[in-house]
Amino acid sequence: MELSGGIFMVIHYPNGKTFRPQNMPTQKIKASPSKVNYGNRGMTLEEEINDSNQYYRATQKAVIHKKPIPLQIVKVDYPKRSAAVIKEAYFKRPSTTDYNGVYRGYYLDFEAKETRNLASFPLSNFHPHQIEHMRACQKQGGICFTIVRFSKSQEVFLMPADLLFTYWDQQTTGRKSIPKNEIAQVGWKIDYRIKPRLPYLDYVDQLIEVSKRHL
Amino acid sequence: MELSGGIFMVIHYPNGKTFRPQNMPTQKIKASPSKVNYGNRGMTLEEEINDSNQYYRATQKAVIHKKPIPLQIVKVDYPKRSAAVIKEAYFKRPSTTDYNGVYRGYYLDFEAKETRNLASFPLSNFHPHQIEHMRACQKQGGICFTIVRFSKSQEVFLMPADLLFTYWDQQTTGRKSIPKNEIAQVGWKIDYRIKPRLPYLDYVDQLIEVSKRHL
Repeated sequence: MELSGGIFMVIHYPNGKTFRPQNMPTQKIKASPSKVNYGNRGMTLEEEINDSNQYYRATQKAVIHKKPIPLQIVKVDYPKRSAAVIKEAYFKRPSTTDYNGVYRGYYLDFEAKETRNLASFPLSNFHPHQIEHMRACQKQGGICFTIVRFSKSQEVFLMPADLLFTYWDQQTTGRKSIPKNEIAQVGWKIDYRIKPRLPYLDYVDQLIEVSKRHL
Repeated sequence: MELSGGIFMVIHYPNGKTFRPQNMPTQKIKASPSKVNYGNRGMTLEEEINDSNQYYRATQKAVIHKKPIPLQIVKVDYPKRSAAVIKEAYFKRPSTTDYNGVYRGYYLDFEAKETRNLASFPLSNFHPHQIEHMRACQKQGGICFTIVRFSKSQEVFLMPADLLFTYWDQQTTGRKSIPKNEIAQVGWKIDYRIKPRLPYLDYVDQLIEVSKRHL
């Protein structure tokens, strides 16, 4: 559907979403002098990641899903001629991280966490089993990280699991949070874009390069 | 903990489980003439796979989990001084397969399915979205397959996703099930063992070799 002069026709669906042909080159959005913030228009970090994952799946760049919340189902009703209704269930503690999938032949495994702190990320946001899970995945050659959002400044970072492990292991004697400037130095700041909203795979590429050097 | 003559000391934990040192070579259990069946002692296929995955995690051979069942939560009660209770929820159709994880740097993605049929596996056991999900994962370099159990004969096979795709794509004109003998030929029969009960990763090794040759 290419028009003259390389202009593409953009189709607007009734749901307000825009369709773009898959092989259409995506324009890189550069940081404008006026610092337009494309992100966080009332979306939670989880919604932003799910939205980006949907884009990555649609463009066949990666297959990454959020895992369902684990529940302990106690009582189910089976009413006639309608769907089964769960009448009693409880939240279970997840034994893994929230997101995993496959990208460029690599297994990706990550958590998404938000903090209202300004200058550091509290380790209390993690459960010991999540740390153990990421360690085990990394041992198998998986690429593990956390997507961290500082909600007040609306800054999002990709933090390699190794940095988390370092701070986690010294928390009984040392500090109980990871400084933001260290996350920025060891990890990468993810700049918001339009499509995908959180282009975190660009930084996963860099994390893969770093991981290869350490092997 | 090696004793003389290559004999290893086996530690029995109070929970009845046996600890073996990690670098201890596991004895291959050969099919005995009396055809001892170690499997299916009242366990469902899902339980057998979960059990095997637990063993694989404990021995640091792989990190594979079953995904929680996706539910649409409608109503939650928060009683004072006790855990939140889900009072109304509905089963959602899963958008992926049931199992995934990482093994030897590879992303694994698979379904587990059982049939009471004797000579073939009906394609009606799969949903179109599961096929699409496996196709997408395989495009990213993931290793995809199905663990199929013929419940009457208690035979379990690892069936490569490619065989499923072939039959899936011709079902409107051709047959609507995959013959067992073809599953056995293209895939592998998984012999039950004690630990792990379903040693499917041995056959994943072979599937990886086959996949490499096709790249």
